[in-house]
Amino acid sequence: MREVAIIGIGMTEFGELWNKSFRELVAEAGIQAILDAGIEGEEIDAMYIGGMSTGRFVGQEHVGSLAVEVAGLEDLHIPATRVEAACASGGVAMHQGYLAVASGMYDIVVVGGAEKMTDVVGREATHILASAADREWEAFFGVTFPGLYALMARYHMHKYGTTQEQLAMVAVKNHYNGSLNPKAQFKRKITVEDVLKSPLVAEPLHLLDCSPITDGAAAAILAPLDLAKKYTDKIVKIKASVQACDTLSLHSRKRFDSLPAAVHAAKKAYEMAGIKPKDVDVAEVHDCFTIAEIIAIEDLGFVEKGQGGKATEEGLTSLDGEIPVNTSGGLKAKGHPVGATGVAQINELVLQLRGEAGKRQVKDAEIGLAHNVGGSGGTCVVHILEAV
Amino acid sequence: MREVAIIGIGMTEFGELWNKSFRELVAEAGIQAILDAGIEGEEIDAMYIGGMSTGRFVGQEHVGSLAVEVAGLEDLHIPATRVEAACASGGVAMHQGYLAVASGMYDIVVVGGAEKMTDVVGREATHILASAADREWEAFFGVTFPGLYALMARYHMHKYGTTQEQLAMVAVKNHYNGSLNPKAQFKRKITVEDVLKSPLVAEPLHLLDCSPITDGAAAAILAPLDLAKKYTDKIVKIKASVQACDTLSLHSRKRFDSLPAAVHAAKKAYEMAGIKPKDVDVAEVHDCFTIAEIIAIEDLGFVEKGQGGKATEEGLTSLDGEIPVNTSGGLKAKGHPVGATGVAQINELVLQLRGEAGKRQVKDAEIGLAHNVGGSGGTCVVHILEAV
Repeated sequence: MREVAIIGIGMTEFGELWNKSFRELVAEAGIQAILDAGIEGEEIDAMYIGGMSTGRFVGQEHVGSLAVEVAGLEDLHIPATRVEAACASGGVAMHQGYLAVASGMYDIVVVGGAEKMTDVVGREATHILASAADREWEAFFGVTFPGLYALMARYHMHKYGTTQEQLAMVAVKNHYNGSLNPKAQFKRKITVEDVLKSPLVAEPLHLLDCSPITDGAAAAILAPLDLAKKYTDKIVKIKASVQACDTLSLHSRKRFDSLPAAVHAAKKAYEMAGIKPKDVDVAEVHDCFTIAEIIAIEDLGFVEKGQGGKATEEGLTSLDGEIPVNTSGGLKAKGHPVGATGVAQINELVLQLRGEAGKRQVKDAEIGLAHNVGGSGGTCVVHILEAV
Repeated sequence: MREVAIIGIGMTEFGELWNKSFRELVAEAGIQAILDAGIEGEEIDAMYIGGMSTGRFVGQEHVGSLAVEVAGLEDLHIPATRVEAACASGGVAMHQGYLAVASGMYDIVVVGGAEKMTDVVGREATHILASAADREWEAFFGVTFPGLYALMARYHMHKYGTTQEQLAMVAVKNHYNGSLNPKAQFKRKITVEDVLKSPLVAEPLHLLDCSPITDGAAAAILAPLDLAKKYTDKIVKIKASVQACDTLSLHSRKRFDSLPAAVHAAKKAYEMAGIKPKDVDVAEVHDCFTIAEIIAIEDLGFVEKGQGGKATEEGLTSLDGEIPVNTSGGLKAKGHPVGATGVAQINELVLQLRGEAGKRQVKDAEIGLAHNVGGSGGTCVVHILEAV
């Protein structure tokens, strides 16, 4: 297997982008990445595009072919593959792109992710997102994702004494980080009181414990490490790329205070990278709900199981903490266009590792980790990146 | 790159399977394949599942995780990836599975495809299928797939003198083959007159020129060729696996009497396999409409461009012809559960190459070719298999 590098990134602004179509989002992120890498379109060998429910959100399946047309590469007939693993679709696209380059099959591979979620009305988005859960045994009975994560939150609070204030502090931190990110959906700071006063969505989760509905796209360009030097001096190496699955349904899971697929993927990723959790300088984790970030930093070994709430309260994961988490604002404040999220996380890490993260730059960041989750933990992808 | 073999296959009956759920279809095809290969579930390293619009047909995205749960492999946390390329989703799953084994990343890989299309009512299935076309520039203006292929048919008739009777003969042949396939949706023979008397869907295509709406699933198990011998004596080798894309929209295509992505994929596949079109003993091609088979046998080089109708009339592609095409009954008679079709084609070729195709067995079949198309040609996947 060859070593793989990221030589370019691109990302649209995240938010309610009423004036941009799905294909415009795909084009914008892709063109940014191509310009950033300094490649010619004709050098692209293959594409992997993450999209969760493009068929229901915008009536468009067959997104790989659309990406080829948008890129004007139809005469090269390059293979473009849409992959889907709910909210981990972007991370899975990264993993498949990584395999495609590492295997020696392709040299220059574009990885993208896109979702346009605000074209549907009312609660439709929530119902569409519920298709990431078990249709027959969860969604059919009325549970949607706030409910599933509320069950996990309640159990975590019961078992470890995690408090609603600690949950809220995840949102407060991520909104602060989002206020420093020009591409974030929410750039306003909030307080613990704001979170606790916001409407309950599914007890104990308030509105401000939940990530929003978002339009957006992100892209990254991968190349063999040896070839990467031809294009750029700002090389970021993929030290580890691991995708893991678990049961689709939460009720079939062996435990509720952890996502076993995340623990498994993280363990394998640390082995592959030859590092320990404490070596991570900056992390983007899947905070679809505040409880998810608390569980994530435990599953990733940043803190012991049960200590995620306390660690957040003590500032471990703040921008000036020991392991800054979700410097981009995370899903909570940067926004969560589900198919794009995994690739957007990679965008943030690359900015941090290149020292280009502006006001939210983590000093001397050398190793970054991305943790992307599908559903209630049915899929988890962990990437470890390093500046070289 | 390692050589890759198919060591097991499985397929549900195709049809209107009202008494089986989506997950039961996935389970049934997967279990058949596992039993056929003689592997233990624990030996599986990864899965790739093709599904076109599972979110709209059955309200279920995140099908990779579902497959892991159905297989009872959650504790192994193996990666399972859904891929989507409209009606080429199954072929793309095969290609990704092939790459995963060929690269050395994984040994035993399950490839699956599934779609349950008859749970939606009225014309909804047609609208869902239209999401394989360009949403903004085709579907929005009301065209659906019968219309798009009718445009191609009309052009082919105009340019080459292809007749409605020749189109009908594709359906007659494939229904005959389907009558010999116990798993086919339609097992009844039809006549040219039946086709021409059936209602017009989009002129010149009659109802019996169109493939049906179908429920079904199919699976195949891949392994490195060296390892394959451990499991079975009936090894089928993948000599070539090529995926190619083109514009999503038909109107942006450079020509209408051919699918350029198919021509490109076929050319590369023949090179990869070191064979010529005349070396192919049996082929499964993507006859979503009768005109599609005529264009396919031209694009694949079985006959010269424009001669597909005449060759069909002369029996070249009949069960006892020079190159039997769609011995399974094809999409037309076997049925077309869109995400499963590409894997179902592989099932038929493996049966033929093993000499297990029963009444529809092609004598001394050694080399088989599968041609799987997404949309109006935005994606095409070609596989060449050989009995070893």
